[in-house]
Amino acid sequence: MSVTAAQGFEAAGVAAGLKHSGDRDVALVVNRGPSQAAAAVFTSNRAVANPIIWSRQVIGDGTVSAIILNSGGANCFTGHEGFQATHATAEAVAEAVGVSSGDVLVCSTGLIGEQLPLDKLRQGVTDAAAALSADGGDAAAHAILTTDTHAKTSVRTGEGYTVGGMAKGAGMLAPGLATMLVVITTDAQLAASALDSALRNATRVTFDRLDSDGCMSTNDQVTLLASGASGAAPDEAAFTAVLTEVCRDLAEQLQSDAEGASHDIAITVTGAATEDDAVEVGRAVARNNLFKAAVFGNDPNWGRVLAAIGTTSAPFDPYAVDVSMNGVRVCHAGGPDQPRELVDLTPRACSVLIELHAGDAEATILTNDLTHDYVHENSAYSS
Amino acid sequence: MSVTAAQGFEAAGVAAGLKHSGDRDVALVVNRGPSQAAAAVFTSNRAVANPIIWSRQVIGDGTVSAIILNSGGANCFTGHEGFQATHATAEAVAEAVGVSSGDVLVCSTGLIGEQLPLDKLRQGVTDAAAALSADGGDAAAHAILTTDTHAKTSVRTGEGYTVGGMAKGAGMLAPGLATMLVVITTDAQLAASALDSALRNATRVTFDRLDSDGCMSTNDQVTLLASGASGAAPDEAAFTAVLTEVCRDLAEQLQSDAEGASHDIAITVTGAATEDDAVEVGRAVARNNLFKAAVFGNDPNWGRVLAAIGTTSAPFDPYAVDVSMNGVRVCHAGGPDQPRELVDLTPRACSVLIELHAGDAEATILTNDLTHDYVHENSAYSS
Repeated sequence: MSVTAAQGFEAAGVAAGLKHSGDRDVALVVNRGPSQAAAAVFTSNRAVANPIIWSRQVIGDGTVSAIILNSGGANCFTGHEGFQATHATAEAVAEAVGVSSGDVLVCSTGLIGEQLPLDKLRQGVTDAAAALSADGGDAAAHAILTTDTHAKTSVRTGEGYTVGGMAKGAGMLAPGLATMLVVITTDAQLAASALDSALRNATRVTFDRLDSDGCMSTNDQVTLLASGASGAAPDEAAFTAVLTEVCRDLAEQLQSDAEGASHDIAITVTGAATEDDAVEVGRAVARNNLFKAAVFGNDPNWGRVLAAIGTTSAPFDPYAVDVSMNGVRVCHAGGPDQPRELVDLTPRACSVLIELHAGDAEATILTNDLTHDYVHENSAYSS
Repeated sequence: MSVTAAQGFEAAGVAAGLKHSGDRDVALVVNRGPSQAAAAVFTSNRAVANPIIWSRQVIGDGTVSAIILNSGGANCFTGHEGFQATHATAEAVAEAVGVSSGDVLVCSTGLIGEQLPLDKLRQGVTDAAAALSADGGDAAAHAILTTDTHAKTSVRTGEGYTVGGMAKGAGMLAPGLATMLVVITTDAQLAASALDSALRNATRVTFDRLDSDGCMSTNDQVTLLASGASGAAPDEAAFTAVLTEVCRDLAEQLQSDAEGASHDIAITVTGAATEDDAVEVGRAVARNNLFKAAVFGNDPNWGRVLAAIGTTSAPFDPYAVDVSMNGVRVCHAGGPDQPRELVDLTPRACSVLIELHAGDAEATILTNDLTHDYVHENSAYSS
């Protein structure tokens, strides 16, 4: 049900011919209210796509009536003509569903540097508006996919309200924020400022800690729309907890469908001086190609873990660090501990525990291994 | 001739059984003077191997009589026992060649986290000392190799003096400094302080700008030994120029033999506000797996270049950037320019020119593509 699990929303996913495959490539989600509060977080990449430039303006007043998303083209580095295409898309949605274009968010995903075919996109908007329904969440979730192998959706319920979402990811998964397109809807009654705060708190510990390949996209956006249709008005903390569950579930689905990956790696750093240090250490390991290739080869090469930690600015003593892989402590106090042969890395799930012994803070970073399939998917064709 | 091209040096390379292959794995270089001035730069990784801990102390007084290098084991994260092995190695060299152990540098390379077999290593020192000769440079250059496919040596001459060197690299090539073992000798007469300054200036624009895979090693060291045997006493600027040529030649040899690489990529950033900005931008592109995989696939995916630039803190306007690949400007002012089909990426050499239009500074970063062979070499066995 994804984005239509919550009351007050309609969605559709149609094929507009933007993808060569002929698959669905335009998704539309409309908030029928009574409230139209919204929040969004955007990629922190300084080179951003035209839809991001547009959507940053739209979200300013905290009111969003609809969001249109296309796969098959990122509309990034496409200059003035590209921005006009984004604007025209919002105008087409506004006309088709009877809202103001200034309340229409736009998201695009696909190849950078090519213009979108505006005629096809406009027809897609018309078709999507005609197909809108309260059962359209799954079709929308399919329409935003690129190299994903399946749709990602998640639904949780709070006290008297529902939170549901859809996500696309697959490649270029890195932090700060998102590197993905995500739309989450709720029928809870919350003001835009509360939604913004809840969304930032939820993404900080979920999507922001997914770092599949260290590459940060130009188009990423996580959007939260609230209709208020349930009549429930939860307090912000309770709502944030439910929202965080949806975000974590979607983040884990993105990880497990990352391009070419054969392992889902959770790197937990404990005993850090600060949470930021824990994140920095986890991320340094997550981005180390030698470590990632070793995991692909089922090789518990803890030396590469320590070499990666050594590139960070986090306080630690290299001769105090412990490292465990899949429950076997292979490094104690910066030296060899249990034999590496005891570590079984054949399961897809791989856990790395790094104990810095430098404080009380911790964080977990999710990443993937570096595989032949990753190289193939990112070299054999443009994406 | 490598390290024995300059007068006053003897070298040897022998097989001590540290490598399973039975290849040469212990190299010894002795400076017979009359001068024994030296300088060295070390990995900036905070997790360093025992030989680095030792060598940092030895270099303190600017006097070095000999340097012993082993492949077949990094002696990193091997605790107190590992440090004792380094110390014992230096003692063995001191005894065998009649110098003070406090003037013996030690370098190791290989797998992290395993103890070196000290008996074999001591025998290797004895054998190497017995084999020392003024023709031993090539044998030494072979003995330091790990996954390198061939030895790297370089010789240049200044006015009345010679500078020659050997290097090993292959994997874990990243900056700040070195991520490699390099020994350079000269028969020029220069004080240790002048050698230090010349070496830092030379490595800053050569080895420090080689970033094959973004991974920084724990064992890297570039050493410069001066015998003064030629009697020539060049001024520091002239010497630095010759030294920089040797360093650049060796850096390019390291790049072209990087593990699994099929392209040697030179990323030149011009129009940066500062040289540091140019380096940061070049490095961000060099470390972007999606860009590197695209080059492997002969795909001039300039969108991935711009997405990588956007992750930096360098001043630039995304809509002012030009990008050329192999001489074809595919991106102008942040938008599409020449058709990407015009770019021929089939040659091994690949040039990327990024014009930021934000200032007058520039820098070139050398890197490699991300290939199936890279993944294979770093996943199929421990290294």
